[in-house]
Amino acid sequence: MSYLDRIRDCAVFDPVDYLPFRVAETRVGRIQKEFVGELGPYTGIFRISKDGVELADNLDTVERRTEAMDRVLRKLHKDGLVPGWRDETYPVTTSFRVPALLHMERAAVPLFGIQGYGVHVNGIIERGDGKSMWIGRRSLSKPTGPGKLDQIVAGGQPSGISLRENLVKECAEEAGIPAELAAGAVSVGAVSYLTERPEGLRHDELFTFDLRLPDDFTPVNTDGEVDDFYLWPMEKVMAVLKDTDEFKFNSALVIIDFLIRHGFIDAGHAEYVEIVDGLRI
Amino acid sequence: MSYLDRIRDCAVFDPVDYLPFRVAETRVGRIQKEFVGELGPYTGIFRISKDGVELADNLDTVERRTEAMDRVLRKLHKDGLVPGWRDETYPVTTSFRVPALLHMERAAVPLFGIQGYGVHVNGIIERGDGKSMWIGRRSLSKPTGPGKLDQIVAGGQPSGISLRENLVKECAEEAGIPAELAAGAVSVGAVSYLTERPEGLRHDELFTFDLRLPDDFTPVNTDGEVDDFYLWPMEKVMAVLKDTDEFKFNSALVIIDFLIRHGFIDAGHAEYVEIVDGLRI
Repeated sequence: MSYLDRIRDCAVFDPVDYLPFRVAETRVGRIQKEFVGELGPYTGIFRISKDGVELADNLDTVERRTEAMDRVLRKLHKDGLVPGWRDETYPVTTSFRVPALLHMERAAVPLFGIQGYGVHVNGIIERGDGKSMWIGRRSLSKPTGPGKLDQIVAGGQPSGISLRENLVKECAEEAGIPAELAAGAVSVGAVSYLTERPEGLRHDELFTFDLRLPDDFTPVNTDGEVDDFYLWPMEKVMAVLKDTDEFKFNSALVIIDFLIRHGFIDAGHAEYVEIVDGLRI
Repeated sequence: MSYLDRIRDCAVFDPVDYLPFRVAETRVGRIQKEFVGELGPYTGIFRISKDGVELADNLDTVERRTEAMDRVLRKLHKDGLVPGWRDETYPVTTSFRVPALLHMERAAVPLFGIQGYGVHVNGIIERGDGKSMWIGRRSLSKPTGPGKLDQIVAGGQPSGISLRENLVKECAEEAGIPAELAAGAVSVGAVSYLTERPEGLRHDELFTFDLRLPDDFTPVNTDGEVDDFYLWPMEKVMAVLKDTDEFKFNSALVIIDFLIRHGFIDAGHAEYVEIVDGLRI
């Protein structure tokens, strides 16, 4: 197994299986043809043709679109077609910081192939003998990637809160990291991908941060989303990443980005360019 | 002015102006239509159609292709159509580490839109009051970007030498950095771009390295390619980068990548995703 296996897990997509999803004449997502059928009954809300699915023109404000979409999604959820309701909304837009065309329930975002956003934090200990990384084991009750390995802190980016505010909130909830410590997280880039997952089509931009933690810091989960934490030397992180699929698909990408930026994967690696290319869609 | 101006300088390309250049049925470059006319007389070597330019089929070994291309290029150079002969060959291939289909004179690489490779080193001083970066001023005699600002060390990647060997060689020649010090350069990623320049179409993959230098180190150029060195605090590097076009087009991209990786450009920047996207084609 290799780093490229992890990258390939984040690039499973065949456009033939999807129709574009448009709002206000702008493509904001992709819907699997099989799921398009489920939207057929909602004739006042979706206009479906062989060229794509559009939100009806008369839904011409953010509020009307958000309300109409919410109505459909609650019905689909009741019918078992939107599993894992989060009660948290994501903005639907064409790119980050562009005002939302509507807001929709997070659990349905992959079913419409809407781009999502998240913050992922690499928690690092640096001693004389090198770097170690804090790794979280996701709770078995999580709707996505239950039991998988993850960054010490990682969370989706909901509507109405800045990246840094979200980072501080997630640091506190997921790992008991106090705000003063979380403020030291260094913004180091972003990874992006477009890939099919059990929950639908994941098209995400993950903002990545490196956070150097004190040697004596021990993370404590407070929201039930992490079952365990491990402090692993980078050699172990790399071995588990390469040789197993224990890491959640997108958390693996964030670690590969860390390995590239800190020289753990050297430019001399036979697949270096392919690996770097794989970090962004 | 902004970081995105620098990124736009590395993305000037309209496919309509180019024809694909193929060797052994594989596309290895792009030739500007205007320059295709200059290849017309070499009927035994190039097959030209409206779909592209191909190296003749009977040139079926690396040696034959290299020899035929060299013959054409020397003639074109004599006619003033390949300026700035370097007497250094680049491999022509489909991607890094794939065996070369032929080797050709470096000065002609942009005229055929062949992908080039390089190593760029950020020379960093880190004191209590923050990071500073060593900046080089390119010699006025350089064929590309004369007088422009650059990394402390940067060089093209010729055939037949590893990236690390090239890095050590360039460190010595360009800045008098001893091999023991150069060995401490950390591989940190790669930037890539496809853009029109006066010398032709530049399609390059630059392998980037961060090299922390001792506080008392002073670079000394030994090959006449650098006229001056400056040690600038990052704030000054950022201001010159954003507000002027003093930096060589691709060296600017390498610094923007550094600023992203080290948190000098924060994820909260209004154009963050566009900047990150601009670092790779």
